[in-house]
Amino acid sequence: MKLLRYGPAGHEKPGILLAGQRHDVAAFGEDYDEQFFATDGLARLAAFVQEQAGQLPVVADAERLGPPIARPSKIVCVGLNYSDHADEMGLGHPAEPVFFLKATSALAGPNDDIVIPRGSEKTDWEVELAVVIGRRAAYVTEADALSYVAGYVLHHDVSERAFQLERGGTWDKGKGCDTFAPLGPWLVTPDEIPDSTEHGPGHLRLWLTVNGEPRQDGNTANLIFGLPFLISYVSQFMTLLPGDVLSTGTPAGVGMGLKPPQFLRPGDVVELGIDGLGSARQVLRAWEQPR
Amino acid sequence: MKLLRYGPAGHEKPGILLAGQRHDVAAFGEDYDEQFFATDGLARLAAFVQEQAGQLPVVADAERLGPPIARPSKIVCVGLNYSDHADEMGLGHPAEPVFFLKATSALAGPNDDIVIPRGSEKTDWEVELAVVIGRRAAYVTEADALSYVAGYVLHHDVSERAFQLERGGTWDKGKGCDTFAPLGPWLVTPDEIPDSTEHGPGHLRLWLTVNGEPRQDGNTANLIFGLPFLISYVSQFMTLLPGDVLSTGTPAGVGMGLKPPQFLRPGDVVELGIDGLGSARQVLRAWEQPR
Repeated sequence: MKLLRYGPAGHEKPGILLAGQRHDVAAFGEDYDEQFFATDGLARLAAFVQEQAGQLPVVADAERLGPPIARPSKIVCVGLNYSDHADEMGLGHPAEPVFFLKATSALAGPNDDIVIPRGSEKTDWEVELAVVIGRRAAYVTEADALSYVAGYVLHHDVSERAFQLERGGTWDKGKGCDTFAPLGPWLVTPDEIPDSTEHGPGHLRLWLTVNGEPRQDGNTANLIFGLPFLISYVSQFMTLLPGDVLSTGTPAGVGMGLKPPQFLRPGDVVELGIDGLGSARQVLRAWEQPR
Repeated sequence: MKLLRYGPAGHEKPGILLAGQRHDVAAFGEDYDEQFFATDGLARLAAFVQEQAGQLPVVADAERLGPPIARPSKIVCVGLNYSDHADEMGLGHPAEPVFFLKATSALAGPNDDIVIPRGSEKTDWEVELAVVIGRRAAYVTEADALSYVAGYVLHHDVSERAFQLERGGTWDKGKGCDTFAPLGPWLVTPDEIPDSTEHGPGHLRLWLTVNGEPRQDGNTANLIFGLPFLISYVSQFMTLLPGDVLSTGTPAGVGMGLKPPQFLRPGDVVELGIDGLGSARQVLRAWEQPR
């Protein structure tokens, strides 16, 4: 299945992609949130969709897409998890996974504008494969880890490098700005992911362009720490709840790694995608003083 | 007002403290969550309590207290914000606030057990003054900042020092373990806080003991960065949502700062409190493999 959410920000309705066409499943009566995943929602939704075959209302492609899940309890992001990206950042290869939390208030739809925060001069891009957790994961073994995955999703881990690296403290300052977590278009269940292995999606291409120029072109085959290890690892430090997001890191080609570095400006257009997970397109704009 | 939540974990009901006695306000029909704070819930609750004067059911003191707010979108914690604590940590005085995110899955009631994570040898204590945000705060000025505060609450920012400082990456690894954020007993509205000034609560004593031994004894008068500055500062990086928690840092006396360092062991008892915000008591226990 490919799950989606559509409609105005904060008022999204649940939907599903069938044969490339968006369909409304508001009649299912649930949002894709912690409760949904914790109560075997995917199986119940699949049964509902089968019952309603051919009768689900079609949603126009012009409708805004929201993030394909409701706001999770947390977004855990892994850093420096492709060796070519660790090299370009000059931060060394980690001996064990580096991770941080991204503020969930940063969540955005896959095609929403990205807001460049006030004072930002180093807003940067990072295409990432993320997983959504299907059930409570605490002290999970690597062997069991993939059974905790509800699905896969395209994530843009937008980053402000000066906030992240030059303002003291942890990376969280430069990772959680509003709109810095465009997610989607779809949450794709594991059965639909090509080339999956016992290690997870083994060979998915992920790419990103800025104003049409190729910037990132990597492959999940090159993850330093693979998905089962990451899920097991994070679950030693904190319980992953149903609906939580775990993002697996970005390959080389971010703006900070270019010579000279290049960062995002208002009007820039970022497009990104992952094999089997669809693509997204975001326009950058400057912050505005809230009313 | 002093707001509380009581009952089994995950099934807490809202309550209120009146003349030192706990009362149930489940009939008010709302939990103390984002929606409550965003819709002027405190004023509506005050009106409800006034209408029901003398008729609210009493809650037995033996009932478990939960955290006094529902799970927020985020818990933002400020580090190294008392000069004596920055000194004992040997991490220098920050030029601007250091902050990080604490996983909201760490939230616990004020008197719940604290679970020492598997493999932990350096579980440490930190008594902190936290504020709960009352309305969306983005790019807030220092002058306006206190108008965004719904109330004050006692927070134990439990920390695993090896996870935080020796395992690579950001502090988040050692701050978000399950049960590492006991909150409460009460959320206290600003009108009830003694010694408030235009800078926030100006002179509140905060203290912590381990097995009855005094370990921390500080005063909010010694914050390096005061509350209005902190709220304004964090709101430049991410929007604080109604119900979010901002914790302001801990004074000297943590286990890591002792010579030799001392950390928490199963059976240890931590008690802590802040003037006007009540006190809490937590027993340490070892992790257990989840079923």
